[in-house]
Amino acid sequence: MEQPIYLDNAATTALDAEVLNAMLPYMQQHFGNPSSAYSLGRNVKSAIEEARKNIGTILGVKPSTLIFTSGGTESNNMAIAMAVNELRCTHIITSPIEHHAVLHTVEHYAHSRNITFSYVKLTESGEVDYANLEMQLSTQSKLGKKCLVTLMHANNEIGSLLDISLVGKLCKANDALFHSDCVQTIGHYPINLKECGVHFASATGHKFHGPKGTGLLYVSEEIKAYPLIFGGGQERKLRAGTENVSGIIGFAKALELATANYAQDSQYIAQLNQLMRKQLAAAVPGVSFNNPENSLYTVLSVCFPLSEQSDFLVTLFDMKGVCVSGGSACSSGDGGSHVMKAIGKAGACATLRFSFSKYTTEAEITRAVEITASLLQKKEVSAV
Amino acid sequence: MEQPIYLDNAATTALDAEVLNAMLPYMQQHFGNPSSAYSLGRNVKSAIEEARKNIGTILGVKPSTLIFTSGGTESNNMAIAMAVNELRCTHIITSPIEHHAVLHTVEHYAHSRNITFSYVKLTESGEVDYANLEMQLSTQSKLGKKCLVTLMHANNEIGSLLDISLVGKLCKANDALFHSDCVQTIGHYPINLKECGVHFASATGHKFHGPKGTGLLYVSEEIKAYPLIFGGGQERKLRAGTENVSGIIGFAKALELATANYAQDSQYIAQLNQLMRKQLAAAVPGVSFNNPENSLYTVLSVCFPLSEQSDFLVTLFDMKGVCVSGGSACSSGDGGSHVMKAIGKAGACATLRFSFSKYTTEAEITRAVEITASLLQKKEVSAV
Repeated sequence: MEQPIYLDNAATTALDAEVLNAMLPYMQQHFGNPSSAYSLGRNVKSAIEEARKNIGTILGVKPSTLIFTSGGTESNNMAIAMAVNELRCTHIITSPIEHHAVLHTVEHYAHSRNITFSYVKLTESGEVDYANLEMQLSTQSKLGKKCLVTLMHANNEIGSLLDISLVGKLCKANDALFHSDCVQTIGHYPINLKECGVHFASATGHKFHGPKGTGLLYVSEEIKAYPLIFGGGQERKLRAGTENVSGIIGFAKALELATANYAQDSQYIAQLNQLMRKQLAAAVPGVSFNNPENSLYTVLSVCFPLSEQSDFLVTLFDMKGVCVSGGSACSSGDGGSHVMKAIGKAGACATLRFSFSKYTTEAEITRAVEITASLLQKKEVSAV
Repeated sequence: MEQPIYLDNAATTALDAEVLNAMLPYMQQHFGNPSSAYSLGRNVKSAIEEARKNIGTILGVKPSTLIFTSGGTESNNMAIAMAVNELRCTHIITSPIEHHAVLHTVEHYAHSRNITFSYVKLTESGEVDYANLEMQLSTQSKLGKKCLVTLMHANNEIGSLLDISLVGKLCKANDALFHSDCVQTIGHYPINLKECGVHFASATGHKFHGPKGTGLLYVSEEIKAYPLIFGGGQERKLRAGTENVSGIIGFAKALELATANYAQDSQYIAQLNQLMRKQLAAAVPGVSFNNPENSLYTVLSVCFPLSEQSDFLVTLFDMKGVCVSGGSACSSGDGGSHVMKAIGKAGACATLRFSFSKYTTEAEITRAVEITASLLQKKEVSAV
């Protein structure tokens, strides 16, 4: 079968061939355990530390602030658990459009630790209402509560972006800890974690052509970090378990490539996004878009008029060889997007998310729009 | 540089070329997110479920009892956290020679949940005193405590083996939950997890020529399982996070190979172990061995008479191109082996662990023994 037109890069990306090449030696000759005292082990440990150093340079932070994990989800869990279990946070402020890796974790710890949490107000377009955030921080602070604010840098479904530096300042002013799920932005924007004032930031390799099963948690040096997973002394005793060595090497290589080619790749991808938007607007009557202005350039969230095919669009596209998503991959089959519900758009239209990478071509965009038009025209579209 | 003589297979093993070949398609064309609804994702999901099914067949359990994790350490953490946080265990019985992934986790949860724990008595050779275990279970039971017993199937340093079925029976008789860290045995013995009566068992791929960063937790169907890491619905909502797909495929392939060739490989490795023991006994005056009788066939724990080189043996061997370990890799640099301390052998001799795999050759053993003899004869050996 032909390779499909892959327009779901916010769910996962193809591993870069150069990244795979960087990983392979650590799956072959360099197989030592990084904790072993002999050179076969120490050399692998050095490679891990070199990877950490390079990532630190890219993200503007000391290598010692970076902890390798098994993915963005573990990183999110680790940050939230640490804030609540060890750093005395007693109230969590989050948003209803966070990834489930944050939402379900907040719910779990709020329940098990018997602490409170609240959602920040969102604008109609799904952006954080900063005045409301400030008000909530101030209210909780007056109640004597230490807050953890956990807000994603970019929403994975509608692409809304957080003013991360502003939230950093608001948190600082109110003595709150600030975690940001940066899974959709690290590897896609130049980010200086130190300057933007986050205490915790999560990333995952497979969103920017790195390997699956690899993640990173940044913990600001202002904070004493604690583990979520206990055992051996790996990761300066903060994350036990034999390291996923080839994964770490791949993560660093992928981030290096993403950063080196950022200007070119991001411009190219943003232009594809604009192209698809323009072509869809011309080809599909009644189409609209869920992205706020100035949103994540990799994601285009499209609102198609309801039709008999609305519930089957992902499958119909699949049958035509196009990979798209109804929402996030992690919540597929979960009974609809909690993000669309939270911004009041669930059910009003059929939402599809198209997301792009440097490997997406203009020809694929044009072909995907043709397929879209033909799918939606097949049966009569009933206006709502 | 020449490839070294690698005699530290209990720390980690070389990835099997056949395993790498099985993984590569999932690092190349089959890159979809397993949670995605289109075929590029669903096919990957099917491959994961096929892997789970095959592992279930090998381990004698239903696929639905198997949860993929990032490694043995996470699996151990998950089992212990689950028992204490959700399954109402209020006392933990463990042993002082468990891996730190168990010991430190027990200490953490005992402290944070304010529950008690105790160590089972060991025999002089480092085996569990089953009468003592039964006594402790009965005592705790009378105190109204629900026990978790967590005992490793094979010790990673001295190779002592647990009678896992007997412990299963003792736990059942006392209504206790039973977790076994099987990191050194799954992939090295034919094990039917259902028959041996464990409620939880942990495994990791990189101990049997699978990839690092991959693990498995078995949770008996008698038990309602709970997650340690929260988020998306992966692993039937028991372990959130985008799956390490190639890692899972590699884990299953490595276990399949290990099982298919078990009879031949284990006999070959046991014979290498015997050979080295015999050669060392002949070449090194005053040498003795820490393994109990009928111990793990992959590990030979050797007690060399103390000498001026005792503290540097691992490095001296490394300089001669031989990879060996003073204890476990995960505790190197931790101030000596807690296992040797627990069995009262710390400081009495210089302990080295040699551990073997199907790739070890007789020539390597013979060469390693020659190097050992020459290293120990270099300076005068002072008897203790």
